[in-house]
Amino acid sequence: MSKKQVKAVIGQNIHAQSFTVARADRERLNEHKGKVIWFTGLSGSGKSTLANALEARLHRLGMRTYILDGDNIRHGLNKDLGFSEADRAENIRRISEVARLMMDAGMVVMAAFISPFKRERELARELIGPENFFEVYVSTPLEVCEQRDVKGLYQQARTGKIPNMTGINSPYEAPADAYYEVISTSANFDAAVTNLVLMALDE
Amino acid sequence: MSKKQVKAVIGQNIHAQSFTVARADRERLNEHKGKVIWFTGLSGSGKSTLANALEARLHRLGMRTYILDGDNIRHGLNKDLGFSEADRAENIRRISEVARLMMDAGMVVMAAFISPFKRERELARELIGPENFFEVYVSTPLEVCEQRDVKGLYQQARTGKIPNMTGINSPYEAPADAYYEVISTSANFDAAVTNLVLMALDE
Repeated sequence: MSKKQVKAVIGQNIHAQSFTVARADRERLNEHKGKVIWFTGLSGSGKSTLANALEARLHRLGMRTYILDGDNIRHGLNKDLGFSEADRAENIRRISEVARLMMDAGMVVMAAFISPFKRERELARELIGPENFFEVYVSTPLEVCEQRDVKGLYQQARTGKIPNMTGINSPYEAPADAYYEVISTSANFDAAVTNLVLMALDE
Repeated sequence: MSKKQVKAVIGQNIHAQSFTVARADRERLNEHKGKVIWFTGLSGSGKSTLANALEARLHRLGMRTYILDGDNIRHGLNKDLGFSEADRAENIRRISEVARLMMDAGMVVMAAFISPFKRERELARELIGPENFFEVYVSTPLEVCEQRDVKGLYQQARTGKIPNMTGINSPYEAPADAYYEVISTSANFDAAVTNLVLMALDE
């Protein structure tokens, strides 16, 4: 095996060397594979809403699921991080490592973060392993997100109170090759969730 | 409710506000509670070996389990951390946050770390919630650990090559009130594991 292949194998089986129960055993018990579904898109695009609806459907099917998002990460694991470029990269790195551990634990992990930079999402894909990583681009247009403005962040950014607001005064680098792209509106919501369920079930 | 009670409730249900599927739903699906079993003790005391044997038994019972230990944490999530006092504290803080997320995901999480300082273990207990936190003190004596010296660390510490080796040139603060204490030797190993299984099953 080449060095790169060895690295990939290690990435898949973090525990294989040391522990009796491995990822494959947990997946057998769960009757599904562990994987990471990564939602990227602007604030207010509907990432968490879609992840939540997807999780509810998968849970009803008896699958083991978890959502990582700003609420449970920024107030816990990553509460020491700010919004500088270095901190945003470290934010995504830690999230990726946690998602990888939970996937190794046999779960379907949904990560819902703006994650505006290609570089960061590539880091996540690399750490998690491309074969485990399903990128969902929630491409709801800025105008729609800004109109919703659920958290009032866009208004604050427009009046200069938030310096690094993605889409306003900080760039969003759209994925060129997302596994799935969806504009989240009430009209297509149920269809979008059904497509995501099919994606999550596909092994 | 007092402020402290509210905080405790939030600690238990990280997701309650935002998501449809909550910890209790996952616990129902798993048919067991999420909890954290925290192994503390010297290097070579048998923490990971006990955690591994415990996990194998729980897995055979159909429980959802995961082990966090130096191998999967120090090379991943916490690979940016060294062994200074501040870094050791940050190491335990992040581990506690990950254990809490995995517990919220409905799993029985085993954390196997020297975690020599009372202050750190109290931080872990606080973050995870005392009602979810089961401290196991693996109190195998230093002489035995040093004789095993599986990783050759004690010898390196004795010859001055490792500066912060717990038990040699850095203190180990023994827990006064561990939930369970065990000296891990081959003679009592099976009995110890059985006791841990009973502890893990107790709700």
